[in-house]
Amino acid sequence: MSLGIVLFAHGSRSAEWAAPFTRIRERVAARGKNARVTLAYLELMQPDFQAAVDELVAQSVERISVVPLFLAAGGHLRNDLPQLVDAALARHPQLRIRVLPPIGESETLLDAIADWAAAESLRE
Amino acid sequence: MSLGIVLFAHGSRSAEWAAPFTRIRERVAARGKNARVTLAYLELMQPDFQAAVDELVAQSVERISVVPLFLAAGGHLRNDLPQLVDAALARHPQLRIRVLPPIGESETLLDAIADWAAAESLRE
Repeated sequence: MSLGIVLFAHGSRSAEWAAPFTRIRERVAARGKNARVTLAYLELMQPDFQAAVDELVAQSVERISVVPLFLAAGGHLRNDLPQLVDAALARHPQLRIRVLPPIGESETLLDAIADWAAAESLRE
Repeated sequence: MSLGIVLFAHGSRSAEWAAPFTRIRERVAARGKNARVTLAYLELMQPDFQAAVDELVAQSVERISVVPLFLAAGGHLRNDLPQLVDAALARHPQLRIRVLPPIGESETLLDAIADWAAAESLRE
């Protein structure tokens, strides 16, 4: 089953805001074996979620892993994202979509962020 | 010079949203030697930036490291945070405040996030 990975980020009016997300996408693509990896934005940037899903389906992707590039789950992940997934599945009933938890639910990433915050703060 | 660390996050209407930030705070405090470590929110949650700074100054903190718990720098970090820092310095002219870059400017953290996103997505 051909896998697609949608890295789902908030979006911003500021074009430079996307730079770290673009770099995460490149790194996930390098680690992701044959998976097709795309960014998708909730608002203010393109592609949006539906356009990203449609493009993956056009490339014969049959299942999609959605990775929320958010630190924590607020209204965007609890309310907006499930509606976006439902709309995508309504258009592509054969598709399988799995939504992963956000960054801040990974113990490993919480530790990595805390290590960085403490080390940078203690540096003279 | 007594050090304070302000972990600066966005804030949300959803109380559960703060959970990962609270856990990051606990871990930074454990790694932060004698530094006083506090969260501060841009909006919707307390304490706000000024209240957090005032509390640290009341605890004899003389310099503050501000760690933006944001993935990327958009308007909040480019416009709002510098104004908050200026206002804090106007009230506490003897204070030294250093603002660190956001999470997404750390190569180590970008790698950690990409490792996690790829591994979780490839898991069956």
